[in-house]
Amino acid sequence: MLPRSNAVSQAARRDRGRTTLAAIAAEAGVSLPTVSKVVNGRQDVAPATRALVERLLHERRYTRAGIRRHRRSGLIDLVFNGLDSPWAVEILRGVEEWATGHSTAVAVSAVRHGNARPASWTSGLASHDTDGVILVTSELTGSQLEQLRQADIPLVVLDPGNPPPPDLPSVGATNWAGGLAATEHLLSLGHRRIGAISGPADYLCSRARTDGYRSALERAGVRFDPELVRNGDFQHEAGFACGGELLGLPEPPTAIFAGSDQQAFGLYEAARQRGLRIPQDLSVVGFDDLPISQWVPPPLTTVRQPLDEMGRAAGQMLGDLIEGRPLHSSRIELFTELIIRESTAAPVPVSS
Amino acid sequence: MLPRSNAVSQAARRDRGRTTLAAIAAEAGVSLPTVSKVVNGRQDVAPATRALVERLLHERRYTRAGIRRHRRSGLIDLVFNGLDSPWAVEILRGVEEWATGHSTAVAVSAVRHGNARPASWTSGLASHDTDGVILVTSELTGSQLEQLRQADIPLVVLDPGNPPPPDLPSVGATNWAGGLAATEHLLSLGHRRIGAISGPADYLCSRARTDGYRSALERAGVRFDPELVRNGDFQHEAGFACGGELLGLPEPPTAIFAGSDQQAFGLYEAARQRGLRIPQDLSVVGFDDLPISQWVPPPLTTVRQPLDEMGRAAGQMLGDLIEGRPLHSSRIELFTELIIRESTAAPVPVSS
Repeated sequence: MLPRSNAVSQAARRDRGRTTLAAIAAEAGVSLPTVSKVVNGRQDVAPATRALVERLLHERRYTRAGIRRHRRSGLIDLVFNGLDSPWAVEILRGVEEWATGHSTAVAVSAVRHGNARPASWTSGLASHDTDGVILVTSELTGSQLEQLRQADIPLVVLDPGNPPPPDLPSVGATNWAGGLAATEHLLSLGHRRIGAISGPADYLCSRARTDGYRSALERAGVRFDPELVRNGDFQHEAGFACGGELLGLPEPPTAIFAGSDQQAFGLYEAARQRGLRIPQDLSVVGFDDLPISQWVPPPLTTVRQPLDEMGRAAGQMLGDLIEGRPLHSSRIELFTELIIRESTAAPVPVSS
Repeated sequence: MLPRSNAVSQAARRDRGRTTLAAIAAEAGVSLPTVSKVVNGRQDVAPATRALVERLLHERRYTRAGIRRHRRSGLIDLVFNGLDSPWAVEILRGVEEWATGHSTAVAVSAVRHGNARPASWTSGLASHDTDGVILVTSELTGSQLEQLRQADIPLVVLDPGNPPPPDLPSVGATNWAGGLAATEHLLSLGHRRIGAISGPADYLCSRARTDGYRSALERAGVRFDPELVRNGDFQHEAGFACGGELLGLPEPPTAIFAGSDQQAFGLYEAARQRGLRIPQDLSVVGFDDLPISQWVPPPLTTVRQPLDEMGRAAGQMLGDLIEGRPLHSSRIELFTELIIRESTAAPVPVSS
């Protein structure tokens, strides 16, 4: 936006120049990081300090970078790591519902792997004057993070495999509790030799699910056997490959907890090719509860991850950031729930 | 956009006022509808006439409503009838790929049924200055159409159940050829009692698929039996319900052609509950080829609808409209392809 006259332009520049965060910090008698925390909606600031800093920010007409109250575009960006998964539409539905209720449009895009210019996706965001970004990814790299910080746009991360730095607000699900519930269900049916297929070992969401699995075993007095745990990505192929390995063991598991519903369907196929019936010969638990999961034969017992609610929560969080409202928490985890269907049953007693 | 001064404003008004389509028509010595056709990128205009009209439009600086070459927002809208289907992400991927290659953002939204103010979704589009709209819907009502025309925004319809009026550019798939190929495959395996589950009877895409099915039967000399055809929506539940009806007939079909992969999965469940094995006791063909379809047990034989390519084609078509390039055709149908997997086999001979 070009200034209408030099006089206006100079006044605007002077006004902006006067109100640095350092000046606010000096005036309030607090540190610069404390002022930053207030600006970024962090909660770990004493209420009286927050009130003082907020008042000074207001009086000195500090314009929060990235907040752009005065030129809202009415558009937010929803960025997926890739558009190749049926759960993308679940998240999208939740974000879109929030946005429609707040007269906001949702621009959807995907980060491309192997992009010659990995920076291009953030410059793409900047080009259409977005109010804020919801990033759905399990692979946020340091350089991507740096790009986003430099773009100075309100950002919420949804379902990160690795938790983002604490100053980045994020929404996830209770992965550990889900792994625990899935495994306790299998134990309660009488299984003792229980395998697990997880996501990549360096994703904390995978580790949390597998740790829940391990804790359930230990609470039940069942020895944890690392040989029964395999890691792959969250796709069908990984479930098929890792499932094949587990089912090919000299003493295969009688039940397997998969890291995603897609992995579970790959595992279904690995079992089918070996002539194993689910649940008679093998019990399977998934993770996600995709809509299709109640329709595969047999309908899948799975840990429901409330993807659409997570999308709505991320929208709400981003809306708070855009409006400059303090966040209640910089990390929200929505509750996972075990949905019992027909892919799990008691193991067949070993005939002696 | 407000004019900078009265002088500019008056000149602009004069200029715009001078260049009505009627004036162009008079100058070219052709009818107003002919000029409209050129403006709207229709092909049914003689080349010499088109060239003359194009030249006059250019010389007289006619600004095409909705084309907005001079103030591109770099944003298009992708509007779904609802975000409750796994194929939405397939279409989205195609549109997003096209858009990324053209430095364009894609805003995704859903038309809500039972909305108290059904007009609100078009006013929502207008509010963020879109360059154009891709509408994915099987239920375009007359009033929705009228709203879109009034909003005067370039529009492409993707996969309409009922073909839109001829002046609306659209992208679809060869539904009739798909129905024919699916049924010929079942006939070639030896099936003679073949059922069909289709979408709603008032959708032309459903009729086209069922007509392809019927033609295949008739070409093979197999009598068409209306009792073996059921209509539902395209969801799992319809496949389950209609499949249950067909399997409950005194003389049930040995093979069923479903109108969508989701219907096919509902049918899988109906068969499973009756203890019928696929494909030994029942052959099933779907329609769509969702990514999940190769992972359900057994992997689904289906008619592939190239949803992502349809998304790219719709993006390309919209790009042409936005740039004012003539369309090669106002209707594109991409080819469907039969993908043979493991849900179809020869029928078991009836023991006498």
